[in-house]
Amino acid sequence: MNAIEKLKKKYRWIYHFQSALNLIEWDFETHMPRKAFEKRAEAIGTISTFVFQYLTSDELGGLINQAEKEARTDEDRAIVYFAKKDYEKQKRIPPKLLRKFSEETAKAQAIWQEAKEKSDFSIFSDQLEKVVEIVIEIAEKVGYEKNRYDALLDFYEPGMTTEKLKGIISPLRKFLVEAVDKISSVEKPEDIFKKYKFDMQKQKELSKKVLEIMGYDFGAGRVDVSAHPFTTTISHNDVRVTTRYDVHDLKNSFYSTVHEGGHALYEQGIPEEYRGLPIGDGASMAIHESQSRFWENIVARSLPFWKFFKSIIEEYFEVFKRHSAEEVWRASNIVERSLIRTEADEVTYNLHIMLRFDLEEALINRKIKVKDLPGLWNEKMKEYIGVIPPNDREGVLQDVHWAHGTFGYFPSYMLGNLYSAQIYYAMLKDLDFEKEIEIGNFDRILSWLREKVHKKARTREPDELIKEISGEELSEKYFIRYVREKYSDLFSVSLL
Amino acid sequence: MNAIEKLKKKYRWIYHFQSALNLIEWDFETHMPRKAFEKRAEAIGTISTFVFQYLTSDELGGLINQAEKEARTDEDRAIVYFAKKDYEKQKRIPPKLLRKFSEETAKAQAIWQEAKEKSDFSIFSDQLEKVVEIVIEIAEKVGYEKNRYDALLDFYEPGMTTEKLKGIISPLRKFLVEAVDKISSVEKPEDIFKKYKFDMQKQKELSKKVLEIMGYDFGAGRVDVSAHPFTTTISHNDVRVTTRYDVHDLKNSFYSTVHEGGHALYEQGIPEEYRGLPIGDGASMAIHESQSRFWENIVARSLPFWKFFKSIIEEYFEVFKRHSAEEVWRASNIVERSLIRTEADEVTYNLHIMLRFDLEEALINRKIKVKDLPGLWNEKMKEYIGVIPPNDREGVLQDVHWAHGTFGYFPSYMLGNLYSAQIYYAMLKDLDFEKEIEIGNFDRILSWLREKVHKKARTREPDELIKEISGEELSEKYFIRYVREKYSDLFSVSLL
Repeated sequence: MNAIEKLKKKYRWIYHFQSALNLIEWDFETHMPRKAFEKRAEAIGTISTFVFQYLTSDELGGLINQAEKEARTDEDRAIVYFAKKDYEKQKRIPPKLLRKFSEETAKAQAIWQEAKEKSDFSIFSDQLEKVVEIVIEIAEKVGYEKNRYDALLDFYEPGMTTEKLKGIISPLRKFLVEAVDKISSVEKPEDIFKKYKFDMQKQKELSKKVLEIMGYDFGAGRVDVSAHPFTTTISHNDVRVTTRYDVHDLKNSFYSTVHEGGHALYEQGIPEEYRGLPIGDGASMAIHESQSRFWENIVARSLPFWKFFKSIIEEYFEVFKRHSAEEVWRASNIVERSLIRTEADEVTYNLHIMLRFDLEEALINRKIKVKDLPGLWNEKMKEYIGVIPPNDREGVLQDVHWAHGTFGYFPSYMLGNLYSAQIYYAMLKDLDFEKEIEIGNFDRILSWLREKVHKKARTREPDELIKEISGEELSEKYFIRYVREKYSDLFSVSLL
Repeated sequence: MNAIEKLKKKYRWIYHFQSALNLIEWDFETHMPRKAFEKRAEAIGTISTFVFQYLTSDELGGLINQAEKEARTDEDRAIVYFAKKDYEKQKRIPPKLLRKFSEETAKAQAIWQEAKEKSDFSIFSDQLEKVVEIVIEIAEKVGYEKNRYDALLDFYEPGMTTEKLKGIISPLRKFLVEAVDKISSVEKPEDIFKKYKFDMQKQKELSKKVLEIMGYDFGAGRVDVSAHPFTTTISHNDVRVTTRYDVHDLKNSFYSTVHEGGHALYEQGIPEEYRGLPIGDGASMAIHESQSRFWENIVARSLPFWKFFKSIIEEYFEVFKRHSAEEVWRASNIVERSLIRTEADEVTYNLHIMLRFDLEEALINRKIKVKDLPGLWNEKMKEYIGVIPPNDREGVLQDVHWAHGTFGYFPSYMLGNLYSAQIYYAMLKDLDFEKEIEIGNFDRILSWLREKVHKKARTREPDELIKEISGEELSEKYFIRYVREKYSDLFSVSLL
């Protein structure tokens, strides 16, 4: 067996432990009895440490170096390229620092929980400062060229820099702030999804139905309930989604399901033989998010979708018969100046991200202090979205991410939206999107995504991938065009 | 840290992987999408090999030897005793032989499945012969004093021998064959549990109710559905049971739930600080089975139980109002000359086991040949139970155990029944069993079991445990007494 084959074998071996971890974490969120919390956290700690130690072991490092000399095919070269990149990056973080990170973020989550419940940022402030200091230390260890924040961005969106991000954000923010102003000036449509009471069991059946229609393979997956919807991959043929149900809010469960379904289709589309190897994942967090957003917003919040799907949803909820497809479409696209990111519509959503990016980047570069966050948060909310949170809970304390120490992650959500629009306009060149959706032919759309995105998995960096798909680098202009076209139609306002 | 503390730490570390395996296997049986089968089997293989290698490593062996010198308390001495025993036993099996065992039994299961479907033993015969040869080799490696079968028995019921078993079986079989004859001469009661259609959802709620009443902690467990009911422990506070439901058969689901509940109470009662250590399990398979059988048969098939529980079951199934507590009690204790072990009543059940023991012991000692099994099976069925299977499916092919290679396991079921009766008569000395049950006070019964059985976990061998509980060695006489008293009452026949 040559080194490259040995390397693959080792990755597939350690992947079995990673796969076990994914299942354990899935169970943690969906089925675990409450008293099991502590022991489960210990088991997760043991197994993830074991996996990390193996992935940073000299044995693996040596094998990667040997394999590098042997790689001949594109595939093998990609495996070695990403193996080496991941290995070197992980090696730069001292195990002691990583342990400190785990311990302090675990504490931070508990403290954040309490602070959020009491809606008092001051409870969280000291611990967050500790986390920020550790994250700064990690960024320094990992290294960067220009901006310390780049080291963090690179964990989630390889190749992305603060400079590039600012170049994207500047015109996008200007456009979005104006768009929200204009849209806010017209009358808000009636929210059909919150007008009635929607039976839980029926919502569950509807979730399965819409996933089936999208092309999700239930022979290789399942849907469960969790507090926060997510998608996880246990193995190639075991990609699970979760969602949540609220009898007074069909929109949340329905679009959460479609969103997670988008992630799951990506995972189910990654070639089986790649799974477990460094190339056997999504290309990046943002590319992953582009797939969920594509299905959630571009497909399932389109007029042709509701022309097709209205007769189906009526089988589950008769009340939809009282409304036209256009009305449902409008209801699914209500734009609001709202406080909570996770509930934001697609027009305001990126503004929520920009605010977080501004604060994160300033924190990591020590331009602002942790204790100033609540004031700055509220100022930016006023400036970007036009509302001021009445309290910390609905303001600076709303997201768990900082307690998790995942600085640099938020921009992926925005980039995912931008990628999805850029992919959409590339798709329009090849097929009649509206027509296919209106007749419920999702096959061709999924096949296109499989070919252009899913099958490529992580065989190249995200910037290469988007160039191959669309012929150019990531740009905000496609998202702007998408919002302009869609919302001009929706609300008869001019967004030029 | 001294060697004993180091040893405990190591066991708790590797237990996290064992715990992951248990969860993976639970998921395999309850939630896994069907296409995930192959990859899941691979992951189970990888992780169980990893655990086995650690448990037979020189590192662990060295630590056990060091710890042996340091053990001062009873607890530490027990830890070292069982650690050493398990280690040495496992070390005696060459890894190559173990791998052959895994491979050939995996094949055997698939072939057995096919043979059972086609009801044709000849399809299975050759592969079973291979398995038997491997098991004989394992027994030879493990070693024994008098009878090769003793080496296998010792895996499941440490200290048990063929000679002891035969001494128990001989009087018990004589008694049971006569008892079945006498009981068969009186009219069979009406089977209320199969007379009506029982709503699935209600059955599920009833399962939860009865487990709650028994004292099962739902904060530290849950109930799911699987093809074959089982109990598994993921961690001290995560003991899960499964059951199955059939709208035309309430007896099966109800008593499966109570049976698994008995196992689960044992697991939930093992001291948390023992978990992961060699003393942190049940004392043996048969002691475990004694707990499930105690709740299933001695508690939940008693007249006082139905006097108490009838008004509760009526809340789920109104039809029970049409029957008296006595009628339900009789229906729960129907004795039949039946073909299938898993559906057998408590009087005939041990006869099914004796038949298997006879054949296993003869096979392992090469006194009979695999190809002669179907004929011998049918002869023994006629002799012990008085019926002859019309085909292999309902005869020699009914159990998966031999395909699994778990020769020596079957007697545990019978021994569990005997232990449960012996424990029952010991309990009667301390509390008014009938009265407590009739008023639904299961607390005192559970507390007694906790004190005498559960808390002891595996700090001593099963033969010591039963002596401590009952003052004497395991004997068939208590089970005989139990059947005699109960069934004389039930059917007004004299079983003296």
